[in-house]
Amino acid sequence: MNPWLQPEPQGWWHVVDDAVMEDLGSGDVTAGALPADLLADWRIEAQADGVVSGVGIAEYLLAPIAGEPDGCFIEVHLADGESVGRDTLVISGRAPARRVLAAERTALNFVMLLSGVATLTREFVRRVDGTGAKIIDTRKTVPMLRALQKYAVRCGGGHNHRMGLYDAAMLKDNHIAAAGSITAAVEAFRATASHMIKLEVECETPEQVEEAVAARVDVVLLDNMDPFTMREVVGLHRGKVLFEASGGINLDTVRGVAGTGVDVISVGALTHSAVALPFHMEFS
Amino acid sequence: MNPWLQPEPQGWWHVVDDAVMEDLGSGDVTAGALPADLLADWRIEAQADGVVSGVGIAEYLLAPIAGEPDGCFIEVHLADGESVGRDTLVISGRAPARRVLAAERTALNFVMLLSGVATLTREFVRRVDGTGAKIIDTRKTVPMLRALQKYAVRCGGGHNHRMGLYDAAMLKDNHIAAAGSITAAVEAFRATASHMIKLEVECETPEQVEEAVAARVDVVLLDNMDPFTMREVVGLHRGKVLFEASGGINLDTVRGVAGTGVDVISVGALTHSAVALPFHMEFS
Amino acid sequence: MNPWLQPEPQGWWHVVDDAVMEDLGSGDVTAGALPADLLADWRIEAQADGVVSGVGIAEYLLAPIAGEPDGCFIEVHLADGESVGRDTLVISGRAPARRVLAAERTALNFVMLLSGVATLTREFVRRVDGTGAKIIDTRKTVPMLRALQKYAVRCGGGHNHRMGLYDAAMLKDNHIAAAGSITAAVEAFRATASHMIKLEVECETPEQVEEAVAARVDVVLLDNMDPFTMREVVGLHRGKVLFEASGGINLDTVRGVAGTGVDVISVGALTHSAVALPFHMEFS
Amino acid sequence: MNPWLQPEPQGWWHVVDDAVMEDLGSGDVTAGALPADLLADWRIEAQADGVVSGVGIAEYLLAPIAGEPDGCFIEVHLADGESVGRDTLVISGRAPARRVLAAERTALNFVMLLSGVATLTREFVRRVDGTGAKIIDTRKTVPMLRALQKYAVRCGGGHNHRMGLYDAAMLKDNHIAAAGSITAAVEAFRATASHMIKLEVECETPEQVEEAVAARVDVVLLDNMDPFTMREVVGLHRGKVLFEASGGINLDTVRGVAGTGVDVISVGALTHSAVALPFHMEFS
Amino acid sequence: MNPWLQPEPQGWWHVVDDAVMEDLGSGDVTAGALPADLLADWRIEAQADGVVSGVGIAEYLLAPIAGEPDGCFIEVHLADGESVGRDTLVISGRAPARRVLAAERTALNFVMLLSGVATLTREFVRRVDGTGAKIIDTRKTVPMLRALQKYAVRCGGGHNHRMGLYDAAMLKDNHIAAAGSITAAVEAFRATASHMIKLEVECETPEQVEEAVAARVDVVLLDNMDPFTMREVVGLHRGKVLFEASGGINLDTVRGVAGTGVDVISVGALTHSAVALPFHMEFS
Amino acid sequence: MNPWLQPEPQGWWHVVDDAVMEDLGSGDVTAGALPADLLADWRIEAQADGVVSGVGIAEYLLAPIAGEPDGCFIEVHLADGESVGRDTLVISGRAPARRVLAAERTALNFVMLLSGVATLTREFVRRVDGTGAKIIDTRKTVPMLRALQKYAVRCGGGHNHRMGLYDAAMLKDNHIAAAGSITAAVEAFRATASHMIKLEVECETPEQVEEAVAARVDVVLLDNMDPFTMREVVGLHRGKVLFEASGGINLDTVRGVAGTGVDVISVGALTHSAVALPFHMEFS
Repeated sequence: MNPWLQPEPQGWWHVVDDAVMEDLGSGDVTAGALPADLLADWRIEAQADGVVSGVGIAEYLLAPIAGEPDGCFIEVHLADGESVGRDTLVISGRAPARRVLAAERTALNFVMLLSGVATLTREFVRRVDGTGAKIIDTRKTVPMLRALQKYAVRCGGGHNHRMGLYDAAMLKDNHIAAAGSITAAVEAFRATASHMIKLEVECETPEQVEEAVAARVDVVLLDNMDPFTMREVVGLHRGKVLFEASGGINLDTVRGVAGTGVDVISVGALTHSAVALPFHMEFS
Repeated sequence: MNPWLQPEPQGWWHVVDDAVMEDLGSGDVTAGALPADLLADWRIEAQADGVVSGVGIAEYLLAPIAGEPDGCFIEVHLADGESVGRDTLVISGRAPARRVLAAERTALNFVMLLSGVATLTREFVRRVDGTGAKIIDTRKTVPMLRALQKYAVRCGGGHNHRMGLYDAAMLKDNHIAAAGSITAAVEAFRATASHMIKLEVECETPEQVEEAVAARVDVVLLDNMDPFTMREVVGLHRGKVLFEASGGINLDTVRGVAGTGVDVISVGALTHSAVALPFHMEFS
Repeated sequence: MNPWLQPEPQGWWHVVDDAVMEDLGSGDVTAGALPADLLADWRIEAQADGVVSGVGIAEYLLAPIAGEPDGCFIEVHLADGESVGRDTLVISGRAPARRVLAAERTALNFVMLLSGVATLTREFVRRVDGTGAKIIDTRKTVPMLRALQKYAVRCGGGHNHRMGLYDAAMLKDNHIAAAGSITAAVEAFRATASHMIKLEVECETPEQVEEAVAARVDVVLLDNMDPFTMREVVGLHRGKVLFEASGGINLDTVRGVAGTGVDVISVGALTHSAVALPFHMEFS
Repeated sequence: MNPWLQPEPQGWWHVVDDAVMEDLGSGDVTAGALPADLLADWRIEAQADGVVSGVGIAEYLLAPIAGEPDGCFIEVHLADGESVGRDTLVISGRAPARRVLAAERTALNFVMLLSGVATLTREFVRRVDGTGAKIIDTRKTVPMLRALQKYAVRCGGGHNHRMGLYDAAMLKDNHIAAAGSITAAVEAFRATASHMIKLEVECETPEQVEEAVAARVDVVLLDNMDPFTMREVVGLHRGKVLFEASGGINLDTVRGVAGTGVDVISVGALTHSAVALPFHMEFS
Repeated sequence: MNPWLQPEPQGWWHVVDDAVMEDLGSGDVTAGALPADLLADWRIEAQADGVVSGVGIAEYLLAPIAGEPDGCFIEVHLADGESVGRDTLVISGRAPARRVLAAERTALNFVMLLSGVATLTREFVRRVDGTGAKIIDTRKTVPMLRALQKYAVRCGGGHNHRMGLYDAAMLKDNHIAAAGSITAAVEAFRATASHMIKLEVECETPEQVEEAVAARVDVVLLDNMDPFTMREVVGLHRGKVLFEASGGINLDTVRGVAGTGVDVISVGALTHSAVALPFHMEFS
Repeated sequence: MNPWLQPEPQGWWHVVDDAVMEDLGSGDVTAGALPADLLADWRIEAQADGVVSGVGIAEYLLAPIAGEPDGCFIEVHLADGESVGRDTLVISGRAPARRVLAAERTALNFVMLLSGVATLTREFVRRVDGTGAKIIDTRKTVPMLRALQKYAVRCGGGHNHRMGLYDAAMLKDNHIAAAGSITAAVEAFRATASHMIKLEVECETPEQVEEAVAARVDVVLLDNMDPFTMREVVGLHRGKVLFEASGGINLDTVRGVAGTGVDVISVGALTHSAVALPFHMEFS
């Protein structure tokens, strides 16, 4: 498939192809134990409660291809973002057994990882229900899988922070230290940056927030700030910038943070510490 | 670097380069806020107890390169496999600030993920201490990171199962169903496979184990078998094949399984559900 | 060179390597007419008035490499963004003649194209001198050379619009038609988009501008609007959004447009219709 | 598409795919503002007089693909090499709006650039009408687009010089200086080169031409020679070699050069300084 | 085609595509001499006695593709592994002449090379008929074509040794010298290697064989051992390990070696010195 | 190494890197049996009489690299094209044992294959010594290794025919049949082809040769013509075109063919049926 003819999330097909090759290498040495023309009826089922993500990858890997025998088919029973529980049927089909076995592990590895991210995101989203705060991800993602993990965050009801260093700007402490002040760093940024790029500044004190707001940045990151202070600075500057809360926020503390009035709450664990949601493939 | 001039684990450099590009995309839009010639003194520290893995990747990403100013350096304080705790200094150096910021997130993402795997593996290994059983991984790995995760398992004291479909054979239930019996499936395999490839057979009952041992396979996988039955079949056939225990084994149950006399215990969670071990980069 | 170890503009090295290969193919069939060990003293000179851009590419292609004879060197006489005239010496050196001849045409093709872009940009920038308006580029770039051309625009004193479809959003007439109104289209965008992405809306009438400003978009594009109307809408909403003038603006009309008070003026011709600035390589 | 299954000009598909990815990057951030199932009726029209080239690229990018809704289609109204004027309809169709918007800019960028080359070529060709001289291109091409630009030259009625360093040989002044004489350089070339490779020699004086003809080269390049001298040397050696005129020839001077009897006239501007021919995409 | 959707032998498609491009480069310069719409009736025939291999590659390169005129077809007359003689028809079809000519040479080059390997293998296999010994290949293969050549060995009735350094282990003299003894080298290997990897040890004397068998390795390579000694050591340890004979074995000596009772006989010449089996393409 | 910074033959480095990876795959599973810091003294020696080719590849693969211990070195004892015999020392050095073992097989595979080609070429060249005829290769090469094999032909004293379909034109029977006559086919070719491309025509009869010469083609291929007829047609048209003899010419018949006065004699066997010249690597 041409790389730009992609369903959402655009940009992941080459990773899927590469992942199958990672498993297949110079060929399946067990394949010779199966008749070349054997067809298999397969189904992928969830094995625990959560939110599914990655069905499109399994579909891409297991859909019938030109030249396969009549009777091969695929049926998708659930869409990304839907809830699953033990034994929920997600996707099923019939295909040459050798091909199914070559793709089985890769398909499951993607679905398990992405559903784990979606499931954890959904849990965070539920905790802030009704507060108006959005749960967002970070750049603390699994190398090579960022676009996919950020898609899974959306499947779980979360939203995305920037994709990388290239689509939005973030001034951190050492940018500020190098420039001398937040104001100077913002000016240095604006001297070269495109007017189409949003600017966020990391702040640790109310004074820094004051300065960032005065410099008319787009977003202020409240870094490891206590909820009381957060509530104060948000109240002071509401409507002038967006506020992001960040730093070690977990399922127990997230609702308290949301109550401070911040716009978005970023949670690194969504993408670096979600455990896999188990799925298996059964044959019949 | 030529792809084959690789320190252990061979084969991961292209993933590291690609991961930096995933973050960098069309360029760091915040870079303009930093003077081009600013140097940064940086250090990576652990933020929790565990086993470190991936130091070589951080070193590769942050080591001085030709043409950089005098005074740039890198110092590695700990080797992969060593224990860390809060604030343990792992690696430090001085380099152009723009370059450090371009590589920082990717370096940390690798070290956090791999150290998470090594740390969980170490925990499993400790639980079976003295039993003679080895903790091994599975193919339930993060797509694109299998070689790295399997390296992290070794850093944590574990051992590796096969790398993929290409370097060892595994007959599962549908191979056996297609052939009619374990014996027939083994024969079908041997008719085409190289004599240099080991063969493992998945067994669910003592009768299947009996048949697999009679067929002189190399390894028998005891699939979701209860410890009592496991102990029995292992006792019956000790020395004739290797035994692998597999199926939902966790930190609570692993020592009981090890007590059955199996040779290796495979744990999918090592690579699909290890949470990240936190590290951060500080500047000074 | 690892793709992420890049001088500015990041992201172009693979294009430069590929371009040399495009010329070299299966090898220089004339090379056999030159002794293998012949060194050449070369220099690149401008042949007309303008602004130079791309010197770093010529330097990358012609700098001494490991294993070449003593006495090889390179000297850069001018930096990107500086003015040149007929016979201005830009860069010179000594290197094996075969290697110089393999890289000569590619180096010149880049420098000529990029300097052409920088020179045309400089001319537009001069025309709006003192007005406060910035000259910006568009996505009407030469395929595969967008990052380089946008760098050349900066060398000429211009600024950049978005890099592509991925780093900023632009609602055009068919987005608006599909949603039913500007307001509805903005809402549809905000329901899924990251809060870190700026939004621009293309407007053709003062009423559309009114609606876009009310929807609190970041930038309004005034599409083919006459200067009188432009001045009016800009006056009405100054400070609430950024205004971009766009549509067939040329060297004759640009100052008039700048006088309307718009913030940025986009000129497609900078990157799709700049003629090459001539340079040649001389040997001595 | 497999890279070798290519319509003319062979070899450009990967550039087209890469160019779309250059624009699309990590995904179209505006796409969420459009319903996923919205279809668009689109048409590409010329906006000025000239010769069209690159229609096949637009067709490749916008043709219906498997799995798209019934009713999607594409219709090509003009072939490469045909004349266009303001509002000439070139190609039209119906396709999912999101996909059209992802490909629109890239398709237009190619068509505008290539049509600009074809249009300028046509103008040069007209100027030499009836003289027997052919207009040819050079290696002064846009990096990565040489094959496409040379195709556009053919669309405009021109012909091609060598594709690169690999398919024909050209002895320049420094080859000759290194060997000591044209004769010696030709001999050095013939000692190693394949007998299937044509040889051209750059000459600046009638004496050099004399020597080159005596050495039985295939083509003589008359470098920056005045028309009077050109006519003389061509008359002297007609039929023994092909003559190429080269060096700063423009629309005003080309007919005079053609009148000297040279076989081919090379014009670098065809590929380094053609301005884009404007086209736009309209929706209805 | 996605690289993992591969008929046997998996892993060669990219080599086939690359090989066509190696021949086609920037395009077929003779193509213009053929009408674009000319169809050709072609057939590939053997020109000597042997075993065919690589028919699937020719089929892949010459099968009709979407958009070609009605009446195009392909017909495969023989499967890999079948015997051919002078004028045996292997595969035939009708396709656009330009496309056939672009693929002809590459298709034949593969079929000739692979059939040469299969034919030589078949000859070795015949020589050991009835002895129980298998003919196997080595890693002395043509760079980039190992998987294909090993497939051709199987077509000829042979079997495969390991695919590369990654799927089986081989301790050679310098491993043993470094460790101090075979026993020590085996222990060093087992300390880090996966339990799923087979181990072979190269032995030159009966004493080394004794030690290797005692160390319970999987396979013993008898390196350049005389048949008398081979027979002796094989007789002594039969059933405890597999024995491989290796070292300069040719068609004249192979049956004598097989008579010693070894399990497999490796022959480097199968893949490094098989001459091509001639095939040609005829048009009608 | 950047792909265009290549010693002769340009264009092969990526094949060499890929070939090492083909052998190394996911890593050398035997490596763990060697101490990581063990150095090896190695040497590559010929094991039979012939002409060496490919020494530069072995040097590239085994030369010391940055960061290796003091004392590592490489020494090249013979250049490509020189004669070797049993035990001739070609290249030697000291390097980390693990790295030598990872590259050993690939280095030898290249040297053996290329030296086989050079050796067979040298033999053909000797047979025609004094006749003035040159021995040339064909496009019947090993897929992916054409540039290297053609280089080896030059090492053996031969010359090269065209590199591929892209650098010279050849009209064959079906081109001629499609056009109606040789004259018509030549005209069709000239209508589109570059004037820088040489044209060869395949002829089977003196009448065809007559027509081809009259059409002023560059080279005439005498296809499977008997020596008597060849001598006649060559005598008739000497000096007007180059003559190539082709078709099943072997070591026994080549001198007779050379005696007919043809300019070049093409031999497919040079590249499709040369047996490997044996080399081995010894440690000490």
